[in-house]
Amino acid sequence: MSGAAVQDAGRVGVWFVGARGSVATTAVVGAAAIGQGMVSPTGMVSELPEFADVGLPAITRLVFGGHDVIATSLPKRAEQLAGGGVFPEAMLPAVSRALLAADQEIRTGAARGASKQPQAIAAAALAEDITSFRERHRLSQVVVINVSSTESPGPERRAYQSLDALEVALGARPDVLPPSSLYAYAALKAGCGYVDFTPSVGIRLRALRQLAHRKRLPYAGSDGKTGETLVRAALGPLFAHRALRVRSWSGTNLLGGGDGATLADPEAAASKNASKRSGLEAMLGPRLEGDTHIDYVASMGERKTAWDHIAFEGFLGAPMTMQFTWQGVDSALAAPLVLDLARLLARARQLGSTGPQEQLAFFFKDPIRAEDSSSEHRLVAQFETLRAWYRRGVR
Amino acid sequence: MSGAAVQDAGRVGVWFVGARGSVATTAVVGAAAIGQGMVSPTGMVSELPEFADVGLPAITRLVFGGHDVIATSLPKRAEQLAGGGVFPEAMLPAVSRALLAADQEIRTGAARGASKQPQAIAAAALAEDITSFRERHRLSQVVVINVSSTESPGPERRAYQSLDALEVALGARPDVLPPSSLYAYAALKAGCGYVDFTPSVGIRLRALRQLAHRKRLPYAGSDGKTGETLVRAALGPLFAHRALRVRSWSGTNLLGGGDGATLADPEAAASKNASKRSGLEAMLGPRLEGDTHIDYVASMGERKTAWDHIAFEGFLGAPMTMQFTWQGVDSALAAPLVLDLARLLARARQLGSTGPQEQLAFFFKDPIRAEDSSSEHRLVAQFETLRAWYRRGVR
Amino acid sequence: MSGAAVQDAGRVGVWFVGARGSVATTAVVGAAAIGQGMVSPTGMVSELPEFADVGLPAITRLVFGGHDVIATSLPKRAEQLAGGGVFPEAMLPAVSRALLAADQEIRTGAARGASKQPQAIAAAALAEDITSFRERHRLSQVVVINVSSTESPGPERRAYQSLDALEVALGARPDVLPPSSLYAYAALKAGCGYVDFTPSVGIRLRALRQLAHRKRLPYAGSDGKTGETLVRAALGPLFAHRALRVRSWSGTNLLGGGDGATLADPEAAASKNASKRSGLEAMLGPRLEGDTHIDYVASMGERKTAWDHIAFEGFLGAPMTMQFTWQGVDSALAAPLVLDLARLLARARQLGSTGPQEQLAFFFKDPIRAEDSSSEHRLVAQFETLRAWYRRGVR
Amino acid sequence: MSGAAVQDAGRVGVWFVGARGSVATTAVVGAAAIGQGMVSPTGMVSELPEFADVGLPAITRLVFGGHDVIATSLPKRAEQLAGGGVFPEAMLPAVSRALLAADQEIRTGAARGASKQPQAIAAAALAEDITSFRERHRLSQVVVINVSSTESPGPERRAYQSLDALEVALGARPDVLPPSSLYAYAALKAGCGYVDFTPSVGIRLRALRQLAHRKRLPYAGSDGKTGETLVRAALGPLFAHRALRVRSWSGTNLLGGGDGATLADPEAAASKNASKRSGLEAMLGPRLEGDTHIDYVASMGERKTAWDHIAFEGFLGAPMTMQFTWQGVDSALAAPLVLDLARLLARARQLGSTGPQEQLAFFFKDPIRAEDSSSEHRLVAQFETLRAWYRRGVR
Repeated sequence: MSGAAVQDAGRVGVWFVGARGSVATTAVVGAAAIGQGMVSPTGMVSELPEFADVGLPAITRLVFGGHDVIATSLPKRAEQLAGGGVFPEAMLPAVSRALLAADQEIRTGAARGASKQPQAIAAAALAEDITSFRERHRLSQVVVINVSSTESPGPERRAYQSLDALEVALGARPDVLPPSSLYAYAALKAGCGYVDFTPSVGIRLRALRQLAHRKRLPYAGSDGKTGETLVRAALGPLFAHRALRVRSWSGTNLLGGGDGATLADPEAAASKNASKRSGLEAMLGPRLEGDTHIDYVASMGERKTAWDHIAFEGFLGAPMTMQFTWQGVDSALAAPLVLDLARLLARARQLGSTGPQEQLAFFFKDPIRAEDSSSEHRLVAQFETLRAWYRRGVR
Repeated sequence: MSGAAVQDAGRVGVWFVGARGSVATTAVVGAAAIGQGMVSPTGMVSELPEFADVGLPAITRLVFGGHDVIATSLPKRAEQLAGGGVFPEAMLPAVSRALLAADQEIRTGAARGASKQPQAIAAAALAEDITSFRERHRLSQVVVINVSSTESPGPERRAYQSLDALEVALGARPDVLPPSSLYAYAALKAGCGYVDFTPSVGIRLRALRQLAHRKRLPYAGSDGKTGETLVRAALGPLFAHRALRVRSWSGTNLLGGGDGATLADPEAAASKNASKRSGLEAMLGPRLEGDTHIDYVASMGERKTAWDHIAFEGFLGAPMTMQFTWQGVDSALAAPLVLDLARLLARARQLGSTGPQEQLAFFFKDPIRAEDSSSEHRLVAQFETLRAWYRRGVR
Repeated sequence: MSGAAVQDAGRVGVWFVGARGSVATTAVVGAAAIGQGMVSPTGMVSELPEFADVGLPAITRLVFGGHDVIATSLPKRAEQLAGGGVFPEAMLPAVSRALLAADQEIRTGAARGASKQPQAIAAAALAEDITSFRERHRLSQVVVINVSSTESPGPERRAYQSLDALEVALGARPDVLPPSSLYAYAALKAGCGYVDFTPSVGIRLRALRQLAHRKRLPYAGSDGKTGETLVRAALGPLFAHRALRVRSWSGTNLLGGGDGATLADPEAAASKNASKRSGLEAMLGPRLEGDTHIDYVASMGERKTAWDHIAFEGFLGAPMTMQFTWQGVDSALAAPLVLDLARLLARARQLGSTGPQEQLAFFFKDPIRAEDSSSEHRLVAQFETLRAWYRRGVR
Repeated sequence: MSGAAVQDAGRVGVWFVGARGSVATTAVVGAAAIGQGMVSPTGMVSELPEFADVGLPAITRLVFGGHDVIATSLPKRAEQLAGGGVFPEAMLPAVSRALLAADQEIRTGAARGASKQPQAIAAAALAEDITSFRERHRLSQVVVINVSSTESPGPERRAYQSLDALEVALGARPDVLPPSSLYAYAALKAGCGYVDFTPSVGIRLRALRQLAHRKRLPYAGSDGKTGETLVRAALGPLFAHRALRVRSWSGTNLLGGGDGATLADPEAAASKNASKRSGLEAMLGPRLEGDTHIDYVASMGERKTAWDHIAFEGFLGAPMTMQFTWQGVDSALAAPLVLDLARLLARARQLGSTGPQEQLAFFFKDPIRAEDSSSEHRLVAQFETLRAWYRRGVR
């Protein structure tokens, strides 16, 4: 890697799966507003002083496009989000050109069961959309990020166990992969790094991880840590390091937006809950009582609220409790992380890193790891890992 | 240090300033109950697996004594605490011998303005109490720990600036040092390591730090981190590392016990509040709005409750909030840390460490540091420092 | 009713269905402790000044017995409850005689599906137990109160629609009525007033209400209002009377005790949730979003915690929220109300009142009403009705 | 009163003291938006079905004017409030005519110590402003409402004890009355009913009450109940009627807006705190522990948050707690009540009612009463009184 490349990472594409959703739209609005200096980059980890000189592509050099199955235009979606309080309406005029530009780079995506043809055909079309985007804009690389709605977990299939078996199946049948994994497959085929920001299965299949390995591509996931789990990752170590015995950790999440409606489906909620629970148990041990609820409350719109109750014992068994309430704006929590991940994954690729990018665990509820690595769920420890990894790249 | 010493640290004395208070009493009860295997050592950091083989003195080898100005017997005090729910009444019979033994080692302490004689005389008497305790029990060393009520901050005096000036003044006047510093002076004169578990000035005077330096003694403080500040140290990095802009951090503490009554005095509260605030500002920057209240609510007894409200901005200025409530039992939070500190300071001394023991910052609201060292207030980072420091001592 | 009777209501029996449970045990302990003047009657509505002279039977004149299907002795159960913090262990010696006396008046109850004989036989045996208790103690009357675990709702049956059809069925088949209704039937056959303190179906069958009507007996229910619903009944009117538009009202309950385990069964929870929801909708209208969860958290023991989140709109649509957390001790909330209800129902019967006692709605989540009466769920309005009803009885 | 008058109360003037403040501005915006049918009258008590036919003046027939000492125009102030989230910016165009109309009816008010002339001269000028407004718009009557910033309590003076003494003093000296009372005096002199929506002393002086009596004018106050105290009035009876023993009731209020800054002054806070406390003690008895804090947190803007912690005992002394958090938008809570009070006071005057209007206690923290009347602080009881009073006026 030449010194020049460190200073100028070139233009980097950000290809959203779910490009008309609230997270992608907010990310496009934010990149434009921050790029123009209208607002400070609050919420963006990659703009902290720690990462000022580690060679990340500039926000102004990100180019946006993506797939979606809905048709609402980005400017319309942005208006709705401004009306819901995600960002000020007064910000819209200045970012309308950026919204229109991204809108023109959105292609129709793949819905489950939409075709009777072998799925390899759909995969090739998706990959071609991405390749064409990269070439049209002469981008140094494209990072594909899944920010679409959470899928229900599907059945395990034998074809998921090896890339060869998978490709045979894709050539023969129309419904081999769930959409999230089909997008991941297409991204890798198109030679792109991949980020799973949802708990859907996505790239987690053995066959897809083999593909990434063969193509020497980096990937990361899954399920962005934006609310309750973020707080849990900060608070869990308090109890662990002070030798306090957590008896139960219960939580209730109230969500209004699209994700809330999806998660009202108990099957989709199941994959979310598993990823929420894993971190706590890694920090505090496996015998923890307590449920975690996700309630869809449509009238809350973009606001989300989590309440957690922790019952613990101290010295000589003294019973104590802690509660917290987190009241956030869903897309405003997720969108900056998506920009961070695009920049950090692009930089990792420049540095020659391939496979699961464990240094990005800081961003995820359930970090994808190499099979032999152990998990670190403590937020501060994850941040230190992130910082050290990128600073090592500084010459 | 020989291998044998690592395995057998000998008997270590723990000398409490405030030996009849609820923290000291709970510590004596707990050491006896845990030592007999009646209860697990919940809440004791030094009993975590990380510290299993670093050569700490065993709990069963701690011997307790101390100074106090009140007369209630330890068994009586323990009954009161059990009645207040700090530990089960059923635990009392098994620990009564330990309470009586400690009770016999408590000597009358020094109250402010109690004498007309030069303060050097009181200091010598206090030091003699400690020396005699050490010799009577043939202890390898004694750690003196201040767990008495918080003092109001007093005036700065010139005599505090150098040990020589201080000793001249002590030889001449009766009221040179506030009690917390007089105890610290006596502890050092008696050749003991010293821990300030309160926000009182204690050992923080330049003259006393010189004395510790000359006598090659270790010390640590100040103000044990047992509730609101503990949670702040865990949560602060969440906002800092996620680039979220904290606008205000407000808090209210409701306390019933003796410390609550003391802190109802605005002057004593002032020293507490300063130590509470310093950590937050170190993590989040200096322009943080928000007050912190400490309310004395007698009927709450040993229970304490803290509510914190944090208003912050996310991406594109989106306003969000977090609140937490911490409901603890005051003495049950403090007592295990006091035992931890006794063991850890004793071990540090065995390892030849002198001066301010910065590796113990994990335990304190406002860690005493060497003058040239920077502050680390993130709880997980403090824990990692603690762990690494003691593991370095493992051979 | 003669003036003498107003002054001296004679001895009144309190017959608990679920007599070895935590509510009944706490009620017996409390009646004894208060009767001896050991503690003030905190939590007892019937001991408020408003009811001082309305002719209620004295606490000291209540005599306890009941049915249960478990065998733990009352003194043993009381020890467990004291260990769990429901009342001080030090209270036990003074109430042990009262516990033993009640223990001797507990008979084996009826479990679902326990017998192959026509259910009329079990009913007659239960009724005989009560009659014999009344005669043995020469009681002026007995009030039967169901404080047993919540049942799952069962199927509707034709025999429930009329008393005649019911009695034919009971004479023929073993499993006509669920236990709660069988106890209610037996209570009425034995000539007793009846109170449903649980959400089980109990006396709510048309056939049983006919029986109460024929026998001119008073009854009341159902589901004691002791936590979340109590707070909702106090807060609901705030929003209604201030014309604030409640958009969602969500709740999570964490329960440890026996009732928690029962309600972890989704079917039993269903009857609880319906009774919890009805009051809110009566006060605030039917289109309210929000779920209510009941989580069983065994380690919480007798402590219960409810968190409610209310999202509402004010003037010009301004979005606002309210949250509350209620942390109570389950049996200590329920037991005094059970004593209140025994006294108040007994007094109502003395005053000649029969059928559903709507003046007792203050105590219930889902008050049993006459068919043509409308519901009042506002707590203060319910209290005023209660007060006025009993004061009308004062001559 | 003729039937016609009941149907058509004529046009009623609403004269704000503090007419450029956020409460008055929001009231003008809201009256216009609701009058045009743009939004539903959420938050307006007087628009509940209970008051549909009691002869209140229609919202569209209210005409606004007032006094203020600041110069920001109402349209400008409305923009600021929309920016702060009090109402949507999209609402502004439709209400701009109403804002301009009210803006033209605002006159310069009286600041403390602004003049060297006898205060009677200032009083006459203020009264003349109001009279001229009434005549210019041919209003049936004008209601004067104080919504200006809270004053510090001043000294008691002899001249406050009788109207005659007061008028002598006003004729002689420049600084007899504090501004709030000067406005009240001017309002009465101009023949207007008066409402104190703040805790300032206002009309509470004996001399001013005499003046109201002589002029047969109605008045009401003081200190609108919009947040913490509103919730306390709803929750207090829960504890009282259930015989639960409240040991402490503590509260912390975080306020950003103008009132927050005022109340950061401990003297102004003192009058606020006294009015907050009085209701609790009336409901729960006088020996209640607990402080109430009011913290100014500028960055919170128009949002206000109150946290209350209630520690109480239940049956057999079981310790329990309740907490609530109220998160509201200050002006959106106050403004509809101000419109309610204008309409209700106007109607009361039509019905011939004079002196303190105790039926309006529902709206106030510290209701002004006739000297011989007792206080009712329970919210539901206050609402029932309000409802009944106005329905008595229905023929």
